[in-house]
Amino acid sequence: METDRPTIRLKPRVDARAIRHGAPWVYADDLVLDRRTKALAPGTLARLEDAGRNELATVAVNPASKIAVRVLDSDPAARIDADWLRARLARALDLRALLHDAPFYRLVHAEGDGLPGVVIDRFGDTAVIQPNAAWAERLLEPLAEALAEVTGVAHVLKNAAGRARALEGLDDASGVLIGQPPEAPVPVPMNGATYLADLTAGQKTGLYFDQRPNHAFAARLARGGRVLDVFAHVGGFSLAALAGGAARALAVDGSAPALGLAEEGAALSGVADRFATRRADAFQAMEALAAEGARFDLVVCDPPAFAPSKPALEKGLRAYERVARLAAPLVAEGGFLMLCSCSHAADLSKFRQASIRGIGRAGRAGALIRTGGAGPDHPQHPMLAETGYLKTLAFRL
Amino acid sequence: METDRPTIRLKPRVDARAIRHGAPWVYADDLVLDRRTKALAPGTLARLEDAGRNELATVAVNPASKIAVRVLDSDPAARIDADWLRARLARALDLRALLHDAPFYRLVHAEGDGLPGVVIDRFGDTAVIQPNAAWAERLLEPLAEALAEVTGVAHVLKNAAGRARALEGLDDASGVLIGQPPEAPVPVPMNGATYLADLTAGQKTGLYFDQRPNHAFAARLARGGRVLDVFAHVGGFSLAALAGGAARALAVDGSAPALGLAEEGAALSGVADRFATRRADAFQAMEALAAEGARFDLVVCDPPAFAPSKPALEKGLRAYERVARLAAPLVAEGGFLMLCSCSHAADLSKFRQASIRGIGRAGRAGALIRTGGAGPDHPQHPMLAETGYLKTLAFRL
Repeated sequence: METDRPTIRLKPRVDARAIRHGAPWVYADDLVLDRRTKALAPGTLARLEDAGRNELATVAVNPASKIAVRVLDSDPAARIDADWLRARLARALDLRALLHDAPFYRLVHAEGDGLPGVVIDRFGDTAVIQPNAAWAERLLEPLAEALAEVTGVAHVLKNAAGRARALEGLDDASGVLIGQPPEAPVPVPMNGATYLADLTAGQKTGLYFDQRPNHAFAARLARGGRVLDVFAHVGGFSLAALAGGAARALAVDGSAPALGLAEEGAALSGVADRFATRRADAFQAMEALAAEGARFDLVVCDPPAFAPSKPALEKGLRAYERVARLAAPLVAEGGFLMLCSCSHAADLSKFRQASIRGIGRAGRAGALIRTGGAGPDHPQHPMLAETGYLKTLAFRL
Repeated sequence: METDRPTIRLKPRVDARAIRHGAPWVYADDLVLDRRTKALAPGTLARLEDAGRNELATVAVNPASKIAVRVLDSDPAARIDADWLRARLARALDLRALLHDAPFYRLVHAEGDGLPGVVIDRFGDTAVIQPNAAWAERLLEPLAEALAEVTGVAHVLKNAAGRARALEGLDDASGVLIGQPPEAPVPVPMNGATYLADLTAGQKTGLYFDQRPNHAFAARLARGGRVLDVFAHVGGFSLAALAGGAARALAVDGSAPALGLAEEGAALSGVADRFATRRADAFQAMEALAAEGARFDLVVCDPPAFAPSKPALEKGLRAYERVARLAAPLVAEGGFLMLCSCSHAADLSKFRQASIRGIGRAGRAGALIRTGGAGPDHPQHPMLAETGYLKTLAFRL
């Protein structure tokens, strides 16, 4: 790891107080991008100074990224070595050990855990690293080693499928860093159900831990009832509901592999006799179910990010409204509708308004009984808290 | 109950679509307040029309209130009788029966349950009505009767201490509507602990159900740790934490009766040997604890509403910031700080900013691991959802 670090500097007009108060990033526009700085390899560790040459922090630089600087340590002289990585990982692990009874969780949530751009999910004795920032790509080997040491996992995989990597100029080559790739999908216990996560085939059939508390709440609402799980993926909401006592559940998704894992998960959870799947476009499936006169006590829609960026916001909000409009008629009187958004650009207020509008356009009305976010194994950096991406609204119609 | 209903009318410039889309209120400024309408007794049932004389809804009128009209039913010809009251109460009860294993909950949360201005809390076989709108005061007797019929409670009390009653021109005379007042504080099971609620002495020593899911989360965080519960009231956070396995808890409050009930609750919960109280001003107590060098693994601050109204907003936000600044130094490294606001005027974003600023001014930094609201027995009317009053932020420092 680096010892002789370059120094980079904020532009004179830029207020350094944000960094002193803990801001995690410096945008390229705020940095003096002289020839020397521009020539730094992506992910180079550096010392950040203000325009008056006062040292601010130890940072990682990526001249190729809009997020040109990520703060690693508020100590400008911090050594970013194996000890440093172990300390950050151990602190992250302490929180998850307190929160969860079994070692299945998001272990590192990037800036929220002091490891900017680094996401690590743990599935028992296997961990999957998403190094979505250049500095982490450079330090991937010591990071994986520290991870194995601190957690005791036997296998460490690299998942390079994240969209953020392209913004950092990184490739999409996934692989095995330590140990072996899993030979089969990994069983994951959550909320009384068992899910199957295919850790090698990428996001389409992996597993998201972020909805865990929202799955649990859905399971409570669904007791004894009929559940429709739209955009079901590997069955996050439906398997939790069935494990919690739902009478039956139908999972709709466009991906056959995901539904296959959902069915295997249902079998492992002992609820296969109450579980059905339908491979279909979600919008078409909801229209078809309405035409069939189908009604459910709980309908959940957890679509992909319709508004991943600001330019996509208006279109995304219309898509969320359409989801609500098509889903609401499928909810029995007095039943529940849970609507989710994992779009950074659609804030809670806008997403809620789109959802309420959609419910109204379906001729239904309902009260909002709960607003959920990502589980606590997804801590947010305080200065990025406005961007909390996951919103899960539960309405009673 | 009324049969021959007066008609009231929106002003010509007022868009009636909001009412058609489910808006719950009409402000006095938007209503034709002619002599006849002004003379209506507060709480009179009426038919609302738009300026073109199209019928909109069945409403209750209060010419003395800024909220001049509350929509009771979207059907302009609805009969607001015992059947209507029973139907609304039965629907509210269905939700709580699904959510809770024991009959202790907020049964009716006003507009969110289709009973505008009416709050009803249930404590086993006793229910407490807060009729905070004039129409409910007028219909209090049939409301109490319907409540006893639908829920089977033996005792129905009236709590008239709410500040909202003055805005409706209502008095503050509490009393007994059905059955007898409880002879002693009522034991309330929540999150594995037993609380004591004094239902006759009013809000100072009653019980709030809204923090229940946040109590449960605090209990998880506090396992094995030391807890400081500031503005503890009857011990909401501390007793749940002790029941969940916290090593010890200190409850600070300015009210001796509240702390007395907390101590009795701790005894009933079997955790008295790990529980201590300190009667003191919360701010002074936090300063004193800091001077003593005290450190806790979880500090919770659940103060009264510092920003109950817009004019009080700036001052209120400074008070929230001060709470965070005084509380943060008391949190051990890697420990947790939970900060709550029950202020309508301080929205989530402003409250979060004030809290983060306070933590920073204490020289600490932390990630936000959870944002909680009121429990699902507090449904929100969709058009009032922006005003979600309860915010509970959990930081890891």
